[in-house]
Amino acid sequence: MPQHRIGSHTLIFPTRPRILSGAAVVGPKEGRGPLSQAFDLILEDALWGQKSYEQAERAIFQEACQRCLKKAGVATERVQALLGGDLLNQIMAASLAARELSIPFFGLYGACSTMAESLILGSILVDGGYAAPVLCAAGSHYCTAERQYRFPLEYGNQRTPAAQWTVTGAGACLLSGEGKGLACAAMATVGQVVDMGVRDANNMGAAMAPAAADTLAHHFLDTGRTPQDYDRVITGDLGRVGSDILHELLEEKGFALPEGGYMDCGLSIFDAQEDIHAGGSGCGCSATVLNAMILPRLHSGEWKRVLFMATGALLSPTTSQQGETIPGVAHAIVLEGGK
Amino acid sequence: MPQHRIGSHTLIFPTRPRILSGAAVVGPKEGRGPLSQAFDLILEDALWGQKSYEQAERAIFQEACQRCLKKAGVATERVQALLGGDLLNQIMAASLAARELSIPFFGLYGACSTMAESLILGSILVDGGYAAPVLCAAGSHYCTAERQYRFPLEYGNQRTPAAQWTVTGAGACLLSGEGKGLACAAMATVGQVVDMGVRDANNMGAAMAPAAADTLAHHFLDTGRTPQDYDRVITGDLGRVGSDILHELLEEKGFALPEGGYMDCGLSIFDAQEDIHAGGSGCGCSATVLNAMILPRLHSGEWKRVLFMATGALLSPTTSQQGETIPGVAHAIVLEGGK
Repeated sequence: MPQHRIGSHTLIFPTRPRILSGAAVVGPKEGRGPLSQAFDLILEDALWGQKSYEQAERAIFQEACQRCLKKAGVATERVQALLGGDLLNQIMAASLAARELSIPFFGLYGACSTMAESLILGSILVDGGYAAPVLCAAGSHYCTAERQYRFPLEYGNQRTPAAQWTVTGAGACLLSGEGKGLACAAMATVGQVVDMGVRDANNMGAAMAPAAADTLAHHFLDTGRTPQDYDRVITGDLGRVGSDILHELLEEKGFALPEGGYMDCGLSIFDAQEDIHAGGSGCGCSATVLNAMILPRLHSGEWKRVLFMATGALLSPTTSQQGETIPGVAHAIVLEGGK
Repeated sequence: MPQHRIGSHTLIFPTRPRILSGAAVVGPKEGRGPLSQAFDLILEDALWGQKSYEQAERAIFQEACQRCLKKAGVATERVQALLGGDLLNQIMAASLAARELSIPFFGLYGACSTMAESLILGSILVDGGYAAPVLCAAGSHYCTAERQYRFPLEYGNQRTPAAQWTVTGAGACLLSGEGKGLACAAMATVGQVVDMGVRDANNMGAAMAPAAADTLAHHFLDTGRTPQDYDRVITGDLGRVGSDILHELLEEKGFALPEGGYMDCGLSIFDAQEDIHAGGSGCGCSATVLNAMILPRLHSGEWKRVLFMATGALLSPTTSQQGETIPGVAHAIVLEGGK
């Protein structure tokens, strides 16, 4: 067994990499939500002066990275690695932003689990002494995701009750081995791909919930901890449908989540009046809520320790049209109050 | 400066993670090439009994992983992480294979640079003591790539002289901190995204060459080494056009590659009679040549030390149609003879 590992899925960061700064940039709909005051920038419109929504998504990703660096007072040239991704084919928002930033780049694809995947690999780079500081980032855009995964907006299709609303936004965190941080990363549980046979591209929550339950169960078994050891167990974007399924699956596994000890980023970002159906989703959902809500509460001491788990539905229009089901994956990282 | 790092882009693996085993599975056209005898499996046809080329790509990826594990005598349940990706949207070949294998999964997207990206992150996991053994894998399929990036095969479009032929194949390596290996990983140089303005989706070599030159120059500057320190400097899939550009760019930077000290996987995999134009390409190109040719020569002692650099063109049909240029990225890893 490697020395920085416990159990089958969990690894430990002995030096506890710090999150020096975080930034969240969101679209107008997200900006009208309950976290309105906590975002670093709220766009006036979803195109943000760009010629296409894809370019807007790139610009938002880049802006989150640059604001994150500015808040930490770190020059772009000093950053030794950028780890990130998004929902566009070929992760073009992240790839094009990486081109503009000129930072050594690890492109990741974990669908909506990307923010946690980037934080885990970034923490490994810092903790192992391979790179620091490193930027971890993820983003998504409602208009590009709808076109790519479902229908172009112009088609005006009716959304089902289980549908979620892809967040237009991006979040970025700067990790370092030294300095005063908002929070630090203590350990992480890497998820495996789980598929319970969901085929409905309008029900991402149900597709992701089994993977979320699997990763959480592995985390608790590996560490000997229980949900009560965390101020919050936080999922990325299960939404109303997925969260309910997660609770059921976890109860079956003997790890019932306590009342008030659970939150879902997808149920925290939008105003209930916004007609978003089952909740928010997209890489940008957990990435922006992490930076606008979770890190500030860890920094203030309101929360001492949380389990942040971003959840991804590995939905492909191509394989779905060929009859494939939608696999899910979820990665979890333990974040503790900074010092 | 973190302790396992030299210069701006290079990191060091003090424990020298071993590549315990490697496997390469390829299609019939690749199987007729000069490496014919060295592949673990040559498919009789490109569909390989599956209902779609996408499912064939998944099956090939999975087969390479399973053969790699079998050669090392390691049970799938013992593998602590799978790192990999492919060219399909949402990296579905890797994602679906990961579902079948049930190994904690880090999904990567680096276009054709993915094999090196997975080896670098896999070496970090092993060297840092976070996971071992770990599987690193990448694959591609000619029929899915043509449909997704250019035209469906049925369209029968004429290929330009600069066009390359996407390899149908997958390669996998098993990394560990102990045991007798075919080769070991000593250090790596992580590339940044470079874009010199190429717009031609039929000239991937030209799009990737500037990134390749950039990463190589960073490697030599960071380490103080020269091309002469390697038995071979090996690029992934620059092909004829990209290789020529690389030589020119490197000469300008003062790092001319010596005669006989350079090879490109894309120029090594196909028979010259196969009408492949500028060479092979795809994630599967460098992944299969690594396992069929490079690792055996390191193991036999014919080569003592090589610089293996997989090269990726971050081509998106969507952003290309919107007028974007094609960014490139290249990641390099130093592989030395095993013991």
